[in-house]
Amino acid sequence: QLAALLAEVHYADVADIINELDEDHATYLIKLLDSEKTSETLTELDVDVREAILANLSAKEIAGELDELDTDDAADIIGELPKAMVQEVISELEDREHAKDIVDLLRYDENSAGGLMAKELVKVNENWNVLTCVKEMRAQAENVTRVHSIYVVDDEGKLKGRLSLKDLLTTSTKTHISEVYIPKVDAVNVNEKPEEVAKIMSKYDLEAIPVIDEIGRLVGRITIDDIVDVIREEAEKDYQLAAGISQDVEADDSIWDLTRARLPWLFLGLLGGVGAAAIMGGFETLMSDYGVLFFFTPLIAAMAGNVGVQSSAIMVQGLANDDLKGSIAGRLLKEMLLALLNGAVLATILLFFTWIWKGSFLTSLAISISLITVTVVAGIIGTFIPIFLHKRGIDPAIATGPFITTSNDIFGILIYFSIAKVILGI
Amino acid sequence: QLAALLAEVHYADVADIINELDEDHATYLIKLLDSEKTSETLTELDVDVREAILANLSAKEIAGELDELDTDDAADIIGELPKAMVQEVISELEDREHAKDIVDLLRYDENSAGGLMAKELVKVNENWNVLTCVKEMRAQAENVTRVHSIYVVDDEGKLKGRLSLKDLLTTSTKTHISEVYIPKVDAVNVNEKPEEVAKIMSKYDLEAIPVIDEIGRLVGRITIDDIVDVIREEAEKDYQLAAGISQDVEADDSIWDLTRARLPWLFLGLLGGVGAAAIMGGFETLMSDYGVLFFFTPLIAAMAGNVGVQSSAIMVQGLANDDLKGSIAGRLLKEMLLALLNGAVLATILLFFTWIWKGSFLTSLAISISLITVTVVAGIIGTFIPIFLHKRGIDPAIATGPFITTSNDIFGILIYFSIAKVILGI
Ligand SMILES: [Mg+2]
Ligand SMILES: [Mg+2]
Ligand SMILES: [Mg+2]
Ligand SMILES: [Mg+2]
Ligand SMILES: [Mg+2]
Ligand SMILES: [Mg+2]
Ligand SMILES: [Mg+2]
Ligand SMILES: [Mg+2]
Ligand SMILES: [Mg+2]
Ligand SMILES: [Mg+2]
Ligand SMILES: [Mg+2]
Ligand SMILES: [Mg+2]
Ligand SMILES: [Mg+2]
Repeated sequence: QLAALLAEVHYADVADIINELDEDHATYLIKLLDSEKTSETLTELDVDVREAILANLSAKEIAGELDELDTDDAADIIGELPKAMVQEVISELEDREHAKDIVDLLRYDENSAGGLMAKELVKVNENWNVLTCVKEMRAQAENVTRVHSIYVVDDEGKLKGRLSLKDLLTTSTKTHISEVYIPKVDAVNVNEKPEEVAKIMSKYDLEAIPVIDEIGRLVGRITIDDIVDVIREEAEKDYQLAAGISQDVEADDSIWDLTRARLPWLFLGLLGGVGAAAIMGGFETLMSDYGVLFFFTPLIAAMAGNVGVQSSAIMVQGLANDDLKGSIAGRLLKEMLLALLNGAVLATILLFFTWIWKGSFLTSLAISISLITVTVVAGIIGTFIPIFLHKRGIDPAIATGPFITTSNDIFGILIYFSIAKVILGI
Repeated sequence: QLAALLAEVHYADVADIINELDEDHATYLIKLLDSEKTSETLTELDVDVREAILANLSAKEIAGELDELDTDDAADIIGELPKAMVQEVISELEDREHAKDIVDLLRYDENSAGGLMAKELVKVNENWNVLTCVKEMRAQAENVTRVHSIYVVDDEGKLKGRLSLKDLLTTSTKTHISEVYIPKVDAVNVNEKPEEVAKIMSKYDLEAIPVIDEIGRLVGRITIDDIVDVIREEAEKDYQLAAGISQDVEADDSIWDLTRARLPWLFLGLLGGVGAAAIMGGFETLMSDYGVLFFFTPLIAAMAGNVGVQSSAIMVQGLANDDLKGSIAGRLLKEMLLALLNGAVLATILLFFTWIWKGSFLTSLAISISLITVTVVAGIIGTFIPIFLHKRGIDPAIATGPFITTSNDIFGILIYFSIAKVILGI
């Protein structure tokens, strides 16, 4: 039977299957699962599928599932429920300690360490002796899937350090914890950004990290599985931004969702194109004698765009990884030199091509010198915009992609014709 | 004193400092560290810095550091040594078991599960009784920083399952392991691609995964900290590819390194631009009467590029996450509809702009209809190329960025002028 078959399948795989079903079949399947698997499966579903299924469950049924989940996952699901439902579901939770923890987690911004942490952790008081400590730990560990670390707090709940299980087991039962704990432990503030937590955990190879509030009290713990999700989602978001897709969409989303994510950037590109056309309109008089100049506008636009995107991508990654050293001026100078070098190589090739093709050395020279200038300016813009956005507190990732290519199209065309005009002596 | 100060700093931070120093100071600092921290710091250094430092150490000194490292990190460092040095360093390793394990790991492709795994793990034989098992485990666990799981193997070393520590401790010492172990355990093949391992570990929230060879023998174990590195590096690589940067470079690399990574893509863009210019040369006769057509070539190129990059980015992510369902034809149709919808909206805006600006309805209509066609073709190319590359076993990530924008520039310009010519009845 189907139920027996599903019992053999991992909940993450069950979620994959349910994500593909329509609402009725999805709800049917969810109700077929045994109770523990239902709740785990719910956490792995796509947000819209989960919403649809939960709309078919009563507050009591939802609370029953949440009772089985870790506090972080339970709080995330409650955060997605319609406002009217939240109160009712919380009052139906059976485990009142659990309910208190979940309500506490609802206070935190989803985009912070507080929004990622769970209340499940093992902590002991520095004033306890080893015997009390072991007893308390046993009770606490029941609710914690993976213990990882035992945290030590003082009477006010402030994080003091951690305890090694080995030290605990080889010490006399009357020893005070304050004599055996390790007073050094990595922790993050509850307001820390998820990317920052990810950086710390990945740098120090941590599997869990305690979270402290503004006055140093231990309020939760973040585990690496949730940070892996943060890293993946952040990378997908940056990749999409660089490609001119402004919302989190997938290939299987509706045409409407995809349009909402894509059309604004295309509209920006249209504005850029219209701007470029208007600039060329201003140089219309060149058309009769120097029509060949107009043949190279896509090349100029492409080079300006490519150099700008390359420079900005390197800046965006450098800013994200905190590995930009030296002054802004030094950085711009380096990018200028680089663009000058690359531009000169490419311009030389182009010079010979155009000269052979059209026979006019001066026109070819004008095009090539313009190309070098455009390359250098594009490199500067690509370097400067991410730094500027970052200083303003805006995610520099939006700078790579259509934003840069559009502005560089306009500047590129303007510079190209202006310089060509000077060199050709018009 | 400096040495005392460094003793307080985490090795990952020491590595950050050393990465910024010149070779002499770096080597000086490395020699100042106590022995355990030296080896850990070495694993966190940039490849080029590590190479420079190791060149100043004797084979015996290097072996001394490797003896303290986990086998995976030791094997990675040996893999970077000059060929002549490898033999010597290995023969200087003191712990011969360790040396054997490291040599074994050297056999595996760095870009596979075998290249990621370590030999450090705890395994027990299914035929042992609980008493033997506990004794053996104690000995093994000494070399393993984090135990995570106890793996059960048969006499041939084949992975049979895993053991829960709790079950082990609550069972009579004479019970056979075969009666208490859990016969279900996620494992990956030694030839599995790192991205695939990352997908499995992140999907099932694993902190460690056993690695088996072609006949099912347990040969190693991969831990989540190394997979976090894989995920981050893979994301950085894809981001750079999308921006037209073909090698792993950072903002602080030399102009020469950056040029090698960037110039080839710019050259591709140059070829595209020259191609576009040649195509326009073929439509030169239109210039006298329909010069305005030439003003919109950057717009056409930008739209073709942007739509193509958007479509390909969505395909690349869909392929990476295995969430593309349905046929290729269906997918292309969806993308066509989407591009048609977006193209029509943009073309309508452009139609009015051009009409008002230049006063010729027919020319404006020609430009707008060309824009729609270009958008649709760009969407199809952007969707098709990643699928095609993926089928050929090539990483589709190279398709997003200059590759798509360049081909779409050429096709876009060609389609634009061809259609305009037809509509204008020339
Ligand atoms: Mg349940
Ligand atoms: Mg949350
Ligand atoms: Mg790490
Ligand atoms: Mg590491
Ligand atoms: Mg969690
Ligand atoms: Mg970001
Ligand atoms: Mg050492
Ligand atoms: Mg390796
Ligand atoms: Mg996960
Ligand atoms: Mg999870
Ligand atoms: Mg490792
Ligand atoms: Mg990839
Ligand atoms: Mg472009």
